[in-house]
Amino acid sequence: MIHFQCDYAEGAHPAILKKMEETNFEQTVGYGADHHCEAAREKIRRACGRQDVDVHFLVGGTQANFTVISAILRPHQGAVAAVSGHINIHETGAVEATGHKVLALPSEDGKITGQQVRDYYNVHWGDETHEHMVQPGMVYISHPTENGTLYSKAELTALKEACTECGLPLFLDGARLGYGLTSPKTDVTLADITELTDIFYIGGTKVGALFGEAVVIVNPALKKDFRYLIKQHGGMLAKGRLLGIQFEVLFEDGLYYEIARQADVQAMRLRDAFEKKGYALRYDAYANQQFPIIPNEHLDKLREKYSFSFWEAMDDSCSAVRFCTSWATTEAAIDALIADIEAL
Amino acid sequence: MIHFQCDYAEGAHPAILKKMEETNFEQTVGYGADHHCEAAREKIRRACGRQDVDVHFLVGGTQANFTVISAILRPHQGAVAAVSGHINIHETGAVEATGHKVLALPSEDGKITGQQVRDYYNVHWGDETHEHMVQPGMVYISHPTENGTLYSKAELTALKEACTECGLPLFLDGARLGYGLTSPKTDVTLADITELTDIFYIGGTKVGALFGEAVVIVNPALKKDFRYLIKQHGGMLAKGRLLGIQFEVLFEDGLYYEIARQADVQAMRLRDAFEKKGYALRYDAYANQQFPIIPNEHLDKLREKYSFSFWEAMDDSCSAVRFCTSWATTEAAIDALIADIEAL
Amino acid sequence: MIHFQCDYAEGAHPAILKKMEETNFEQTVGYGADHHCEAAREKIRRACGRQDVDVHFLVGGTQANFTVISAILRPHQGAVAAVSGHINIHETGAVEATGHKVLALPSEDGKITGQQVRDYYNVHWGDETHEHMVQPGMVYISHPTENGTLYSKAELTALKEACTECGLPLFLDGARLGYGLTSPKTDVTLADITELTDIFYIGGTKVGALFGEAVVIVNPALKKDFRYLIKQHGGMLAKGRLLGIQFEVLFEDGLYYEIARQADVQAMRLRDAFEKKGYALRYDAYANQQFPIIPNEHLDKLREKYSFSFWEAMDDSCSAVRFCTSWATTEAAIDALIADIEAL
Amino acid sequence: MIHFQCDYAEGAHPAILKKMEETNFEQTVGYGADHHCEAAREKIRRACGRQDVDVHFLVGGTQANFTVISAILRPHQGAVAAVSGHINIHETGAVEATGHKVLALPSEDGKITGQQVRDYYNVHWGDETHEHMVQPGMVYISHPTENGTLYSKAELTALKEACTECGLPLFLDGARLGYGLTSPKTDVTLADITELTDIFYIGGTKVGALFGEAVVIVNPALKKDFRYLIKQHGGMLAKGRLLGIQFEVLFEDGLYYEIARQADVQAMRLRDAFEKKGYALRYDAYANQQFPIIPNEHLDKLREKYSFSFWEAMDDSCSAVRFCTSWATTEAAIDALIADIEAL
Repeated sequence: MIHFQCDYAEGAHPAILKKMEETNFEQTVGYGADHHCEAAREKIRRACGRQDVDVHFLVGGTQANFTVISAILRPHQGAVAAVSGHINIHETGAVEATGHKVLALPSEDGKITGQQVRDYYNVHWGDETHEHMVQPGMVYISHPTENGTLYSKAELTALKEACTECGLPLFLDGARLGYGLTSPKTDVTLADITELTDIFYIGGTKVGALFGEAVVIVNPALKKDFRYLIKQHGGMLAKGRLLGIQFEVLFEDGLYYEIARQADVQAMRLRDAFEKKGYALRYDAYANQQFPIIPNEHLDKLREKYSFSFWEAMDDSCSAVRFCTSWATTEAAIDALIADIEAL
Repeated sequence: MIHFQCDYAEGAHPAILKKMEETNFEQTVGYGADHHCEAAREKIRRACGRQDVDVHFLVGGTQANFTVISAILRPHQGAVAAVSGHINIHETGAVEATGHKVLALPSEDGKITGQQVRDYYNVHWGDETHEHMVQPGMVYISHPTENGTLYSKAELTALKEACTECGLPLFLDGARLGYGLTSPKTDVTLADITELTDIFYIGGTKVGALFGEAVVIVNPALKKDFRYLIKQHGGMLAKGRLLGIQFEVLFEDGLYYEIARQADVQAMRLRDAFEKKGYALRYDAYANQQFPIIPNEHLDKLREKYSFSFWEAMDDSCSAVRFCTSWATTEAAIDALIADIEAL
Repeated sequence: MIHFQCDYAEGAHPAILKKMEETNFEQTVGYGADHHCEAAREKIRRACGRQDVDVHFLVGGTQANFTVISAILRPHQGAVAAVSGHINIHETGAVEATGHKVLALPSEDGKITGQQVRDYYNVHWGDETHEHMVQPGMVYISHPTENGTLYSKAELTALKEACTECGLPLFLDGARLGYGLTSPKTDVTLADITELTDIFYIGGTKVGALFGEAVVIVNPALKKDFRYLIKQHGGMLAKGRLLGIQFEVLFEDGLYYEIARQADVQAMRLRDAFEKKGYALRYDAYANQQFPIIPNEHLDKLREKYSFSFWEAMDDSCSAVRFCTSWATTEAAIDALIADIEAL
Repeated sequence: MIHFQCDYAEGAHPAILKKMEETNFEQTVGYGADHHCEAAREKIRRACGRQDVDVHFLVGGTQANFTVISAILRPHQGAVAAVSGHINIHETGAVEATGHKVLALPSEDGKITGQQVRDYYNVHWGDETHEHMVQPGMVYISHPTENGTLYSKAELTALKEACTECGLPLFLDGARLGYGLTSPKTDVTLADITELTDIFYIGGTKVGALFGEAVVIVNPALKKDFRYLIKQHGGMLAKGRLLGIQFEVLFEDGLYYEIARQADVQAMRLRDAFEKKGYALRYDAYANQQFPIIPNEHLDKLREKYSFSFWEAMDDSCSAVRFCTSWATTEAAIDALIADIEAL
């Protein structure tokens, strides 16, 4: 069985394990104040092209999401997000557990637009009874989205302009950020994201680390006391250096980009194979997630050798499914899958 | 500089890193449903002497504490704990952030008694206005405590009896459980803890793992939907197998006990050296934390070569401090420290 | 200016003020333990046709909603409701502020069906990753709904059956319950509601009281410690007898029904006038709220003498608006409005 | 039986009921936007001696406390308060239910000092691990306190200075404020309180109203969006004019002061009687609550005709108890009680 079900099926890039071993008996202080974390922060600042950002390391994505959101919002405010956003669907109400409603905007492909944000804001404030409704307090997006789609630089710029007009901080969930940055179709760089958001994170868990997300706080107003929030929400790893070490390795000599690019290359091969086979694609995705619409009988056949995720029944005979590649996906695995697709 | 400041200064026991490397390219499902987690659960059940307990792996102690507590309590209930309990002091209000008050009982040495619990319960229910006060809903203890002290089997039995009488689940925070179980002065076994608590956890972070706490749910009434709570609170590691692997190694051939015992042995050597030197001990501790009361000028001298924690000023000239040993503490390090103490 | 904007524009039925004055210098205990509250509870139990229900008096509807919901749910659970439900739209995220997501079902007319509940439940539990999603923990409906519509006895029965099958308590928000019970088109009685829900409330604020909602707990499993929840959420009125007095009066000799019926009679006269004028009705409502679709120029004219609520733009020229009658609406006010409608 | 158990045993001052009746059929908008609320706000601003304060009307004290506190604090912050503070003891964890710890300072008489606040603040920020502890975010006091004691102007000034130095807003719970302002021993005026706090409330429930607390926001930084918080926490009364009407009456021609003063006069008569009888006083209280220490056999005797609150057992034979007078306490009732005390 070869797994394409998710992008966290394996451990970590071997260089990470190697450095963990080499540094294993170093004695360091805890909670992220060690020199590995400091070095990783420095590398990330350089990669972002700005020295004035704060960088914090958290363990996982759900934790990063609700920690950031609860740090930003006042109690009566909510986070505007696509209806399909991870925080709205797949985090067991973690944001609500901190007291905040997710304000869901309709979305066909996982993205939302600046105009949607502006409209939502105006409807809220235009309503005489606005105090009876949750006030929009920030905007949450992911890049790539849950549907594998990507914001263009123009779209992201428009979104940021709307957020600025409305006084809403923009938060970008980058759980799969690497795969977005190295997509063959993107024009968005890490420096762009740094300029066009107030806070975001660089995903490690799904891009070569054992675990870990690097939260980058760009907007100075959001920096205050963030470490308290991390601790309160259980995200302050005692042996924080483990996070530092991982991001040190990933941001050494562009490893993060290199391994993400390779996953995207394999995903594009897969995309071509689906298209060649005549399968429609549920979303027009150019990163490591692909969503072909495949006849159910073909799916049954593929399930004998491959794991992947059911996404949505399109009709009685066809379903959209999700295949993920990752930093660990081998060319051989994709060769095998493509051959089996062609043979269907 | 040699660190005795905490028990999480190093990485992990080498056997853990070795197994992580060996299994690195295995493809497994996520979120703790993999075969390593299953194997680790099985080993822990055996170590506890009961097959009917649920075992869940969380990343850290604060996370384990508020996840367990919020899973047990209804909104109007609080957790009874020693005033010095970790949840009351050192978790940035994580329990309160889930909506619950910590109901603090006085304690000289970090422990509370069955009689204190019974009295608190009776005062609450005896008050006509009890509905205006937080209802005691469970009892939280740690073993070893924050002060390095240990419950005897008789004390734990009395506490459990009081809890049972009052209908209060008993939760034991075992962040340093290993060091308690292998103390030369303890009569409490892992099987005893399994029998005498409703839920507890076996600490990994401080006892040889990179991170990880194994929550053991003994009381069937507390088992329902626990995985939802883990996910909601950001504790469900995507690559859950990392937790499974670590506890597989720790509970293979008694490694957990072996490394904890060695730390206790070194702590006892240190304790003897303090006593021989004539330093009083702030708490009568027989596990890996020692709290000598030392003249400030001696402390200044020791700080040149060793790190340790300031605990409390006793008077103008003396302070209580904390020295921790751990699974990684070497005999040579203790030799050096003892020699320097003797030379003061 | 005559107000039809809401059903809480006036004070209280004069009989209530009279009794408040008569009893003003009685000394009673506080917090709802007085003899007026006891008498009111007894009357409500009789009206419900069951002696074994618990009755609690709260001050307002939002408070009643989030107190009940947070009393029922565990942290990882949410309340299933129509997307247009009051808790989802008009309570500033009060339910989320207690940590729970509102799980919104689509609804055209404010009602949801048993089949919708069953489907939602099955989709949740049928999903492999259900632990990553908020678990449905109860069902919330209102009767009359926000759209003035009413459940038939058959619909309510079907809903309750689905809830029972799925193990979900059914909570009915009866902020306008009186107007529903006395509708000319309803076949649902207070006794039916008592049999077909687990918990509900009888609205006072909008039906003749100064304020107050009587929460009736039918399901014994939901009764425990409810007064703690009321206190914690700020709903335990110090001079609780004020609530008792009001419900004593309302449930004396059927006053509650009498004043609600009169409001419905005036609403039906209004409905007839709208239909006679050729205005379509946005919802098929037979209680005290009416939602005609009226040309904007007619609305401008009506606004000179009457207040009412804008609901929704139907197209460039027409809007749906809401007219409320109440226990205090006079026949003369409706006469005037009808005459002005006819004259448009 | 004559009740001295609390200060909310009766209804409201007759002038309030009269005005409610006179205005009963006025139609007004809801939620506090009506002309009665506006008039009451204006009167309160005048009484405070400042036009630039915001005034909001809430229903009860617990509600006012947790609404104000949750409006001020960020998630990782707590409210510093006397250990005996109402929020710490008698509100069923309402503050914790909004996610915040109450940071309790020791207090013998219900008051805390500026120095205590400064010390707590310095200990927090002086600790290397301060991020692991709840950050002090504001200070809560009550005046009169739970023990009937009063801050002098000098004490309040010192407290405010400490708060300003530490950047902590000062919140004064004035549930019994009237009785404090008219105490024969006070030098603190309403204008002083307005100058020396950031936010406070003027209690109505215990001082002549049916219910209601007027929150006065002095510090502009705390004003933003406060109405959202009121609504979210269930404190926005639909018929908000009921609150306006009550405070209009109370602040017309100094009625609030007049009725409070009369209660204090009766309390002082009682105090004198206790002292004359040789009873010690548990607290040195000069407002409407008195705490004599009385032999248990005398208490048994008094209980035959009077209700009062048990406070604390002093030893086997004596107990401290609490007698409250209120706006409704008659001279005759005090005459009777004094006669019975003398006769013991």
